[in-house]
Amino acid sequence: MLTAGRSGSGEGKPVLAVVGGGPVGLAIAWRCAQRGMRVTVYDPAPGSGASAVAAGMLSPVAEATFGERDLTALMVNAAARWPAFAAEVEVAGGRDVGYRTDGTLIVALTADDVAEARRLWTYQQSLDLPLTPLLPTELRVREPQLSTRVRGGAYAPADHQVDPRRLVPALVAAARAAGVRVERRQVDRLSDVDADVVVVAAGTGSATLAGLPVRPVKGQVLRLRAPGGGPPVVRHVIRGYADGRSVYLVPRVDGEVVVGATVEERGDLTVTAGAVLDLLRAAAELVPELAEYELAEARAATRPGTPDNLPYLGPLPGRPGVLVATGHYRHGILLAPITADLVADALTGGEPTGGALAGDDWPAELAPLRPDRAARQAPVRRTTGQAPADLPTGQAPADLPTGQAPADLPTGQAPADRLSGPGDPVEEGNRWN
Amino acid sequence: MLTAGRSGSGEGKPVLAVVGGGPVGLAIAWRCAQRGMRVTVYDPAPGSGASAVAAGMLSPVAEATFGERDLTALMVNAAARWPAFAAEVEVAGGRDVGYRTDGTLIVALTADDVAEARRLWTYQQSLDLPLTPLLPTELRVREPQLSTRVRGGAYAPADHQVDPRRLVPALVAAARAAGVRVERRQVDRLSDVDADVVVVAAGTGSATLAGLPVRPVKGQVLRLRAPGGGPPVVRHVIRGYADGRSVYLVPRVDGEVVVGATVEERGDLTVTAGAVLDLLRAAAELVPELAEYELAEARAATRPGTPDNLPYLGPLPGRPGVLVATGHYRHGILLAPITADLVADALTGGEPTGGALAGDDWPAELAPLRPDRAARQAPVRRTTGQAPADLPTGQAPADLPTGQAPADLPTGQAPADRLSGPGDPVEEGNRWN
Repeated sequence: MLTAGRSGSGEGKPVLAVVGGGPVGLAIAWRCAQRGMRVTVYDPAPGSGASAVAAGMLSPVAEATFGERDLTALMVNAAARWPAFAAEVEVAGGRDVGYRTDGTLIVALTADDVAEARRLWTYQQSLDLPLTPLLPTELRVREPQLSTRVRGGAYAPADHQVDPRRLVPALVAAARAAGVRVERRQVDRLSDVDADVVVVAAGTGSATLAGLPVRPVKGQVLRLRAPGGGPPVVRHVIRGYADGRSVYLVPRVDGEVVVGATVEERGDLTVTAGAVLDLLRAAAELVPELAEYELAEARAATRPGTPDNLPYLGPLPGRPGVLVATGHYRHGILLAPITADLVADALTGGEPTGGALAGDDWPAELAPLRPDRAARQAPVRRTTGQAPADLPTGQAPADLPTGQAPADLPTGQAPADRLSGPGDPVEEGNRWN
Repeated sequence: MLTAGRSGSGEGKPVLAVVGGGPVGLAIAWRCAQRGMRVTVYDPAPGSGASAVAAGMLSPVAEATFGERDLTALMVNAAARWPAFAAEVEVAGGRDVGYRTDGTLIVALTADDVAEARRLWTYQQSLDLPLTPLLPTELRVREPQLSTRVRGGAYAPADHQVDPRRLVPALVAAARAAGVRVERRQVDRLSDVDADVVVVAAGTGSATLAGLPVRPVKGQVLRLRAPGGGPPVVRHVIRGYADGRSVYLVPRVDGEVVVGATVEERGDLTVTAGAVLDLLRAAAELVPELAEYELAEARAATRPGTPDNLPYLGPLPGRPGVLVATGHYRHGILLAPITADLVADALTGGEPTGGALAGDDWPAELAPLRPDRAARQAPVRRTTGQAPADLPTGQAPADLPTGQAPADLPTGQAPADRLSGPGDPVEEGNRWN
């Protein structure tokens, strides 16, 4: 049995164990330690899961899709917290996290691609999300290396990026500076952890730890590198529709361009020829110059998917003292700060020992995220799962039959009531720029 | 100064130093040791050069191209030696080398591809090389997983394969068993080697060691792996023309499929997005099932090219005691056994101390391969060099202006007179099957 927290001084403080040292778990640990809790993170290799492969797009607008208003509201609120969060992590962790606010260009190659993209843009604009359609000439003013084949696009100024491979070490350093212990150990059963409160933030590993329908959704991602070590030829995050295929390009200042990602209903980590082919083809169609780039890495990871694409956040039914913060699917980086804030608020906002933990006191506004909805969810699996990269990354969740969502899931603004912040466009219109 | 050979017993035997531990150098060392010479091979990492990336096609027929009759004759003779050579290496080295005689299918996807391929087939058949045109239905009987788009093809039964990554360790073991010493050391100058005879077999490194116009020609190669660990869905070596791009697929029994190769006039070892894209696209167009394969490796190496695509084999001008065996370009694996035989014959066939080494006694029939032709060669570089994979691998040498070959290079059968063996079709017609 592992024992969370230190012996010695601070013995009287609440003891929190976080199982899982990805961005979500580390941010929770950091925030809770800042509120005075004694915290230990358990992970055999912090940051080695999905975040090691993730591109780090922070895209509440381009990712807003039909039938996911709760998720969109959560993501919008999450994005609003990122500028301050990034600045604070960089100071506390003593290093850069690669947070970049150049915004995102969405581009479409063929007339069919434009039609498909426009359908979503219309929806996103109906939510007053900040999105400006651009002419091809306007797109090329912003990114001169875009293919001359690009026929349409839009600018999402509030869709930013961070580098997860810089974020995780910064979070580890920040958490340690706040007193968090990071134990490089595998936790196979929750009963192996001795703590007042246990938070399960173990990504796809949460399925067995917490008995929740979290399933692995494989994503394959490439990393290109500009020849000669300079910065890439593009500056914005570029999300493209290319001959029916989707791809995103995330340029880093250091010359790296992340190219992603497949969305596959399988749990292996094999890099396949077909996925690499599709990603490279779409990337080179959008920005031909990328063909000259080094293919520096090809890697796969599994995202923790849930039946309704919403994370599980709240008390684990029948397990007093156990909170769940997992199932962030394709949005773990974006949602890490807000998840951490919500957990810290719940654990320290009421009684310091965690009155919310019995399940009864969990904030009603967060009800849509509660893990107890899992009992009413049939696991949903797409039937097209084996084909790599055949789904636009921005729309994969739309393939899920949202009509099967449990009846008590609000279709409207329930979490936004609680989650709305100063920049929430659902509540306050477009104040993103 | 390095000292080749052992002290102690055998002191009276000739001492041979081979600089370069690729297949050519190792085969030379082995053969010379078998003839009673005391041999040391110098290489910091034997088998780490071009052979570590090479696919190992043994293709005298499919590689026979316009204006290279000397090279074709040499390759035909070399291929005839392979069955016995492979068997002998396997016994002496105590391990399998992956020699496979399933033959090669040449396939073409579009009408343009068929026309381009047919032009070369006609030439190859005019040399009586064993090549049988096949209908698409006949191709698919041999390889059911070929794309239904394949419109034409041919069967080259004498074009075989070997696995260079198995061959090198087998050669090292065979050479050691015959008394060869392998010294893991870098040789930067020939004067650093103390031996009666020095053979330079250092691939692209031969340029600085021997002052010859050997240039690096980059090749990028992928290795795929069948899912589940079974054998690949194809059995033959497949050389394809796919929408104007060339690719070859070399299936191993263990599930690996080697996909190659670019031909680029540059010396770096960077794996580029464009090259991987082109190779994967062509491979998947020919055998769609390969999209499901793991992309296990992408790697580049440089082949040692010469101005006329013929290797340099013979005495180094002005350096008595130094032989050169390099510049094998894209054919180093195929030509290793014959190169070794020719060197061993030259060194031990006449006076045992190497009468050939003064240069005067070098067999006249091998004159076309003599390094002293370099003085009359202007280095030839293709102007299309930067574009990856845009040249059919079987035809790249045809782009070289053969009209610039020195006047004393025979256009006909000179080396075949000496090199012809029992299987030489130039001399004796089609006796390959």
